[in-house]
Amino acid sequence: MSQLLFRTLREAPQDAEVESHKLLARASYIYRLSSGVYNYLPLGQRVLNKINSIIRSKLDSVGAQEMFMSVLQPVDIWDESGRSADFGALLPAFQLEGRSGHYVLGPTHEEVATRIVSTYAKSYKDLPVTIYQIQTKFRDEARPRFGLLRTKELIMCDAYSFDVSKEKMVDSYEKLRIAYDQIFKELDLEVTPVEAKSGAIGGDVNHEYMVPSPIGEDTFVSCFSCGYSANTEIAKKRNLSQEEIDSINKSITERFNTLIPEEVLTPGDGSIEEVAGTLNLKDSKESFLKTYVLKDKEDKTKTVFIVVNGDRQIKVPNELEAFEKEDFLNSGLIKGFVSPYNLDPNFNVKVICDYEILKVPESGYVVGANKENYHVTNVVPFKDFKIDEFADVASVQSGDSCPKCNSSLTLIRSVEAAHTFQIGLKYSNAMKNAEFLDSDGGTKPYYMGCYGIGVSRLLAVIAEKHHDSDGLIWPSAVSPFDVVIVPLLASKDDRVKMTANRVYEDLSQICDVLFDDRELSPGVSLADADLIGITLRVVISPKTLISECAEVKDRRTGSIELVKLEVLAQHLSSLLVE
Amino acid sequence: MSQLLFRTLREAPQDAEVESHKLLARASYIYRLSSGVYNYLPLGQRVLNKINSIIRSKLDSVGAQEMFMSVLQPVDIWDESGRSADFGALLPAFQLEGRSGHYVLGPTHEEVATRIVSTYAKSYKDLPVTIYQIQTKFRDEARPRFGLLRTKELIMCDAYSFDVSKEKMVDSYEKLRIAYDQIFKELDLEVTPVEAKSGAIGGDVNHEYMVPSPIGEDTFVSCFSCGYSANTEIAKKRNLSQEEIDSINKSITERFNTLIPEEVLTPGDGSIEEVAGTLNLKDSKESFLKTYVLKDKEDKTKTVFIVVNGDRQIKVPNELEAFEKEDFLNSGLIKGFVSPYNLDPNFNVKVICDYEILKVPESGYVVGANKENYHVTNVVPFKDFKIDEFADVASVQSGDSCPKCNSSLTLIRSVEAAHTFQIGLKYSNAMKNAEFLDSDGGTKPYYMGCYGIGVSRLLAVIAEKHHDSDGLIWPSAVSPFDVVIVPLLASKDDRVKMTANRVYEDLSQICDVLFDDRELSPGVSLADADLIGITLRVVISPKTLISECAEVKDRRTGSIELVKLEVLAQHLSSLLVE
Repeated sequence: MSQLLFRTLREAPQDAEVESHKLLARASYIYRLSSGVYNYLPLGQRVLNKINSIIRSKLDSVGAQEMFMSVLQPVDIWDESGRSADFGALLPAFQLEGRSGHYVLGPTHEEVATRIVSTYAKSYKDLPVTIYQIQTKFRDEARPRFGLLRTKELIMCDAYSFDVSKEKMVDSYEKLRIAYDQIFKELDLEVTPVEAKSGAIGGDVNHEYMVPSPIGEDTFVSCFSCGYSANTEIAKKRNLSQEEIDSINKSITERFNTLIPEEVLTPGDGSIEEVAGTLNLKDSKESFLKTYVLKDKEDKTKTVFIVVNGDRQIKVPNELEAFEKEDFLNSGLIKGFVSPYNLDPNFNVKVICDYEILKVPESGYVVGANKENYHVTNVVPFKDFKIDEFADVASVQSGDSCPKCNSSLTLIRSVEAAHTFQIGLKYSNAMKNAEFLDSDGGTKPYYMGCYGIGVSRLLAVIAEKHHDSDGLIWPSAVSPFDVVIVPLLASKDDRVKMTANRVYEDLSQICDVLFDDRELSPGVSLADADLIGITLRVVISPKTLISECAEVKDRRTGSIELVKLEVLAQHLSSLLVE
Repeated sequence: MSQLLFRTLREAPQDAEVESHKLLARASYIYRLSSGVYNYLPLGQRVLNKINSIIRSKLDSVGAQEMFMSVLQPVDIWDESGRSADFGALLPAFQLEGRSGHYVLGPTHEEVATRIVSTYAKSYKDLPVTIYQIQTKFRDEARPRFGLLRTKELIMCDAYSFDVSKEKMVDSYEKLRIAYDQIFKELDLEVTPVEAKSGAIGGDVNHEYMVPSPIGEDTFVSCFSCGYSANTEIAKKRNLSQEEIDSINKSITERFNTLIPEEVLTPGDGSIEEVAGTLNLKDSKESFLKTYVLKDKEDKTKTVFIVVNGDRQIKVPNELEAFEKEDFLNSGLIKGFVSPYNLDPNFNVKVICDYEILKVPESGYVVGANKENYHVTNVVPFKDFKIDEFADVASVQSGDSCPKCNSSLTLIRSVEAAHTFQIGLKYSNAMKNAEFLDSDGGTKPYYMGCYGIGVSRLLAVIAEKHHDSDGLIWPSAVSPFDVVIVPLLASKDDRVKMTANRVYEDLSQICDVLFDDRELSPGVSLADADLIGITLRVVISPKTLISECAEVKDRRTGSIELVKLEVLAQHLSSLLVE
């Protein structure tokens, strides 16, 4: 420990918002060189090496082949795939001009993988092929944060599968899922694969591997009853049948028949926050209906209102796009004050409402009055405005009904640990020669899958899931050392020193041991051991030696026991395989 | 083998000039994505992984600690060390502008290492510290060539040592030398550490680890008698004493007393090539004396001529710099035709000659006539021009005398496999807080060493040293597989198929085995096995089975023997540890 490049920091870095970041920095696992750019100190690198070994062994076991692609990618292969159009918000890639070439610093490697496989696997006999690499990726993040969770430079394990057909692609996808499950199991992470948006990668089916965590930037929806799970961006909730809608319509109309809509002055921009303030309805977003004004992408003269509860986000149907400023001017609609209430009957609009608006609150809804600086209260659907269609156009919330089994859905904040995609033909169709000779003599494009695990991010995810107020608690498979030996009062007691040295020699034969030879005060030594979080701590002190014992603490359970020195090695071995 | 991402290419890439490049490309080890940018295919990655394991184990064994620094380096730390001034020719670094920062893509990591160590090792008790990483480096090479030997993106293992004193720095340097020796021994590379120029890294003492090779871009000088070795850029040759010079002066003057200098018309730029052409003296560069015109850096009015043999390069003394175009105009000297012969006696110049010009050829030297388009032949030093001083100002050639033992020196073309530097205080003095608290209570700057092995380059160096006309020949420590099994006529002979399968299962228990299950013609299978170059080849055919044998070929020696199946595993094991 006196030789280890390591220094306990009392204070966490100022920009550290989450525990994993604070602890990894304080215990000398990571060093921040600049915003979103981290360096891995010896303790951190030991954990990374162990994570990488696990990943390699599991991916190798399903037949994936390791390779190493370049960081520098000529921009022309991104032009070829069509993705250079996505550079910016969707794909925040770093670009640079060299002496002789314009490069992208690989944020991902679909294009390069396609180019390589289509050079070497030209026949159906060469397929399936799954390649992977563990490598540094680069993303010009606008807002790096949460330590290793969102950075500009990150370590990833990315894999790419190539198959002769959609069915075979699904087989490869399933193989990788099995490998991923095994990897996360070894890392002691409970991970839920959820359906998600494909973003800049592409393809129809894809799954995020989510680790529930209160610091998560993602949220997924889960049904504990049937197992349905999806990212909230695309999660579905149960649709109501026409029969159910008719019945609700009837009951609403009866229940609210005495409620009279009332126009109220609400000066400002018409935002829910502002109107709620004016009406003293703070924290009651669910009393509002939000009306989004959209138009058909194909026939831009067709105007559509999408009406959702004030506490939900809209899910925009694919065929619609946003109203522009000019559209508002032409239509006479007043931005911030639009609603389906009190519309000119000659105004041609289709009103699509989310099912959830049918759970009408006690005093109806607040909606825009279609009049500058005015809203209307006590508004009731059906009774006070016409509805053309119901659809699942609003985000899911906890308590909504599962689309598969009708049980209650739960929203779970989470961190993404991995993301896999059934890409299909996107890159094979776009790129030159991305085809193989099939058994029938014809050439066909590859069906492709793509798979990514955030390796450096895992360091943070594991730390986030496994720590307590004293420090980190590494699962034994990735602990930087298996055991830390802490001799107490060694400078004053020769027997402690000699015994500790001997135990260190012995244990070093069977596992990775860190030896605290610093001869600091017991308090400092024990606190450092807890902070670093090595799975097992062995204390040797004048007191433990009275009974020829060492004290063994399992950092995972907190359990402490005295163990006879003669069976210490055996005892530790049994704890490590747990 | 049917699953391996691999395809034998009959033709080497057009830009492949050297065997290592041709073979690594043809045998599917590497894929060139663009100029100087390579990707490592599964076979190549397997070799890299093995090289990396060897490096890690040897560096760990001398107490070096692995970490992982970032590729993205804010340019301001290069300003701090003063090296941003070197960007360009000396340090061809890629730079880029991100959303929020100007970065250099790490071509090397002295600044980052210094910053990190000076954060975590603040006391003399924390020293020595040696850290290392295996990582991708970036250099904007003007002329990438020779496959992996000069690239824009390369894998390096770089290490940095930090010590309390110069003596301790030398101790750390020696430890790393021992580790390096062990690494190269395992890689079966004969490496000579030679003294070299420090270039952009800095420090007084440094060594290049040279592998002799006819394709080398470096040349070093070696004395087989005393072991002196140095890069030709800085190599010394024996200096003559004043007594020796006086004696030679006397003998020259006597020997050449009948030789009369003769002016000859040599129109053109005055280059040796052109003048030699005019005078029909081709391939006789040694008959010329070259005169370099320089000036003192401090006192620019002081002009100096450096005179060296026409077949040698000048070694410019540190205190001098080149004459500019303007200087030529002011001085009246005629570029291309300058020499110390027939100079105006009032022209103030110091003439420094290399010792080697005293080996005067039969008919004297050809020198410039200090007159446009004219040279002079039959010129003899001392007799025909004055000499102010002798010095070691010309490059070394084979046959020159060793500066240490006076034996004959040999020039050896070579490839650089590693480079180590005793940097001293360069970075500690330049960078903020790069100091530690010493035992006497004072703060002192770190003494630093820096060490680099070209990992991806090693792939090429090993391939260059170990191949024959059939293909690559991997040393067993880095062979992508230990054994390749080639069944012949398996599709026609069930016994071959079954035996080969069983042998594959058995051998897989004890080593890495590649199995050629492609059922191609014997010629293709055997040629592929030779090309890939796996250390041991096991052929199982109807013929070998007659005697219950397999044929074992050791690719390193070419030896072929029939080995009984029952002792095959044992036999292969013994060959692998050789």
